[in-house]
Amino acid sequence: MAEAPTAAELRELVESRKIERVLFDYAHNLDTNHPDEMTNLFCDDCEVTYAPNFGASGKEAYRETLNGIGSYFSATTHHVSNIVIDFVDENTAQVRSVLMAIHRYQRERPDGWMFGQYHDTMVKGENGNWRFKRRELRTTMGIDYHVKTSHPLGRAE
Amino acid sequence: MAEAPTAAELRELVESRKIERVLFDYAHNLDTNHPDEMTNLFCDDCEVTYAPNFGASGKEAYRETLNGIGSYFSATTHHVSNIVIDFVDENTAQVRSVLMAIHRYQRERPDGWMFGQYHDTMVKGENGNWRFKRRELRTTMGIDYHVKTSHPLGRAE
Amino acid sequence: MAEAPTAAELRELVESRKIERVLFDYAHNLDTNHPDEMTNLFCDDCEVTYAPNFGASGKEAYRETLNGIGSYFSATTHHVSNIVIDFVDENTAQVRSVLMAIHRYQRERPDGWMFGQYHDTMVKGENGNWRFKRRELRTTMGIDYHVKTSHPLGRAE
Repeated sequence: MAEAPTAAELRELVESRKIERVLFDYAHNLDTNHPDEMTNLFCDDCEVTYAPNFGASGKEAYRETLNGIGSYFSATTHHVSNIVIDFVDENTAQVRSVLMAIHRYQRERPDGWMFGQYHDTMVKGENGNWRFKRRELRTTMGIDYHVKTSHPLGRAE
Repeated sequence: MAEAPTAAELRELVESRKIERVLFDYAHNLDTNHPDEMTNLFCDDCEVTYAPNFGASGKEAYRETLNGIGSYFSATTHHVSNIVIDFVDENTAQVRSVLMAIHRYQRERPDGWMFGQYHDTMVKGENGNWRFKRRELRTTMGIDYHVKTSHPLGRAE
Repeated sequence: MAEAPTAAELRELVESRKIERVLFDYAHNLDTNHPDEMTNLFCDDCEVTYAPNFGASGKEAYRETLNGIGSYFSATTHHVSNIVIDFVDENTAQVRSVLMAIHRYQRERPDGWMFGQYHDTMVKGENGNWRFKRRELRTTMGIDYHVKTSHPLGRAE
């Protein structure tokens, strides 16, 4: 006879699904060019780093980094999988996920492919919504990708 | 102390997993060329639209559209991620997912890559099984893909 | 009013998430070149088969097959999705998932792309951890991939 999970185990399941949805909504709003909706997924005091010297401190500064997505890309597609969630406490979670992102540029140049991992700190606000407190992108490999610097994945030698 | 989820929250978790499985079984039966098993994942009165003038009304008509998958493709691989589920009521759900599909053709031509989103309406039958009531494919971008028309993703200008 | 799931349904949800994490940790430890951590995800008496004559019987033999990942590849990225889990009993599950794996080689040669499915038998140990009892990789298609033999996906003619 299967033993019933505890309330804490079940709560983590429910919250995990909510956290995953924030990751998916980020990708969706990026691919449909809705920078304001993307920004609303971040905390006021968020830290975002996509590469050395490419990121932002705080929601307002982050919003500024998104100004180019409409004019620079004609299409993007972000595929997020392999999501692993560790709860630090009831309102904080560390999240690792794997990304494939393909970028079609407005300029005439080959599509840019990017493979990497997101390492996120998510926090739950008083309204029950999970938001990005910190988002770090680590790069596994790229093909014709326009961003030439990166945080390494940390592959062992 | 974690608060236990409600019965409704837990029921949605259980049903969400069942819904995801239908999406994955669709991909599996497509990639293994089992059109009858694919068709059984749809309601009798389903509406399917892959592109303007490419789709079907009703299960029987849908089955007809699948006749070519064995002879036209030598292999396909469908990768479904970023699944977001909204329950309209206990027996109806709106589902958004992200797709990468690669097609290897029987004819000598380059592999066709397709990136997009499925927007599905799923309904739960009296037997407890979830089925596609409506499946719409929106296209983000393609590479050497044989279908030249598409429903747009809806990327903002 | 939503009916509460049974203890058995909820237990499967909790265990399913644990099983998915093992699949994701396998990919993570492979992509970050941590063969010992990969090996620890397998049972002592595991059976692993990636292709005919490419696999291992037992954890020690499996560890040997991983010796090359640091020297042969400069980077790899494993994207696992479409996960379907069937519980055989409380401590055994059959798992099917879809894989896209891209390999960048130390040698000068094009990246090797591999698309396929994992078919896994997972067992739960006395410590509550799920481990691979059997892992079989089936190949849908490849592009410039270095392994030239494969277990077929089983696409119907």
